[in-house]
Formats: sequence, C-alpha cells, structure tokens
Amino acid sequence: MMTDPIADMLTRIRNGNNARHETVDIPASNIKKDIAQILLNEGFIKNFDVIDDEKQGLIRVQLKYGNNSEKVISGIKRISKPGLRVYVKNNEIPRVLGGLGIAILSTSKGIMADKEARKEKVGGEVLCYVW
Amino acid sequence: MMTDPIADMLTRIRNGNNARHETVDIPASNIKKDIAQILLNEGFIKNFDVIDDEKQGLIRVQLKYGNNSEKVISGIKRISKPGLRVYVKNNEIPRVLGGLGIAILSTSKGIMADKEARKEKVGGEVLCYVW
Repeated sequence: MMTDPIADMLTRIRNGNNARHETVDIPASNIKKDIAQILLNEGFIKNFDVIDDEKQGLIRVQLKYGNNSEKVISGIKRISKPGLRVYVKNNEIPRVLGGLGIAILSTSKGIMADKEARKEKVGGEVLCYVW
Repeated sequence: MMTDPIADMLTRIRNGNNARHETVDIPASNIKKDIAQILLNEGFIKNFDVIDDEKQGLIRVQLKYGNNSEKVISGIKRISKPGLRVYVKNNEIPRVLGGLGIAILSTSKGIMADKEARKEKVGGEVLCYVW
C-alpha cells in the first residue's frame, strides 16, 4: 500500500520529464485521471490514455517537449500531503509564480486548476503546483 | 533613459544564466546592489562586486552553477512594474512555490526577502520572484 499515490504520480512525471521519456505509466485512480486531465487542459502534457492491465489500470501520460526538447513542465511540487493537509478558502487560492504556473485543487466541485476555483469561488485542498 | 532598470538587471541575469556565462555586468544603482546582496544571501549567485567605470559604476555578478553546470536560478519573474506597481500588506507577503523560491520586496525597512519581511512584519512593493 502506497502512502501517497499523488506524490508517486508527480514523481513519475518529474523523472520521466527529466529523462526526456515519451511516456510514463502510472497506476490508475479517479483522482489521478482528473489530475492528468488538468495537466492536459493546461498544456503541460501532450495526451493521456487509460490502459486496462487487468488490475487497477494504468494512466499512460504522453509527455510534452519544445522544439529543442525543452521541458514544458519546469517544476512540480506536492503541497498538501497525507501527514500535513493544506486547505485554502475561496479567497486564499494561491497564485503560482504570479500566474506563470498553476495550482491543482481538490474542491467540492471536483479537481480543478486555481483559475477555475477562483471563478467558481470554491476553496479546497491544494494538491500541487505545476509550472 | 531606461524605463525599468530592475527588469533590465533581471533580464541580464536570466540571459547570462541561460548562456552559462561566468559573470554579467549591470549598470549600478543602490537598489540593484541591494537586490544582488539578497541573491547572494539566498545562495542564488556566487558573489558580486561593484566596479568603478567612471560613470554610474557596474555591478559584476558572478553566476552560480551546480557540479554538472545546472542552473542554480531556474527562474526569475518581475512582479511590480513601473506601469503596474504591486504592493502587499504584511499579512499578504507571497510565498513562492511554497518556499522553494523567494520574493524580493522593497519595504520601509529596506530591500528584503519574503521570509525577513514576514519576520519584520512589514509589507511593501513586490519587486520580483526568484526560484
């Protein structure tokens, strides 16, 4: 049993990205699919698929690079952790590098990026920053 | 007459850093010396000297790299600008990437990093983020 599956997902993406891999595989879960969807919407990854491995399933993330193989994701940081949860109110939603990056939040209206949470006026748990 | 000498300083450092230069020269001013001092205190540069060029003087910044010439400064962003000043109160001092980076503020007690401003309980103008 993994203690922090979201941290595991972020680490796999970070490592795959640093090694310039085309794809990374991540044990699937609903929250991780939602996070992958946000990374796709925000332009940080090329695509993702859910693959049936006859167990919990795999999320295969297609990483994205620039023309000179520059990383599109320059950093990822887990914020809330199982041992220290970080929650914010709807008027405290963090801005990451003055809008250069995003925060991904788990809210009562689902997983969303900081901009959407601000628009929807919902706070929640700050899962991570991506920039 | 330059419209934003601090943006010019940050751009010179960013460009020198990307090109892996050993040093960058910046036309001197007191505020820019203070910013260089913070970058030094926070471990983002190796050193800096002020050189007399019989004009306004030059700040020669010695850039810092890791063992495999990784950049120590992964990003710099100007926040407050001459056309749009950004001020924060002492209870609104931004955290940059959850403490991974710093904000440099101009306060009534001088130029300081976000941690010091929080300790001194002073707000001010948010000059830039460095991470």
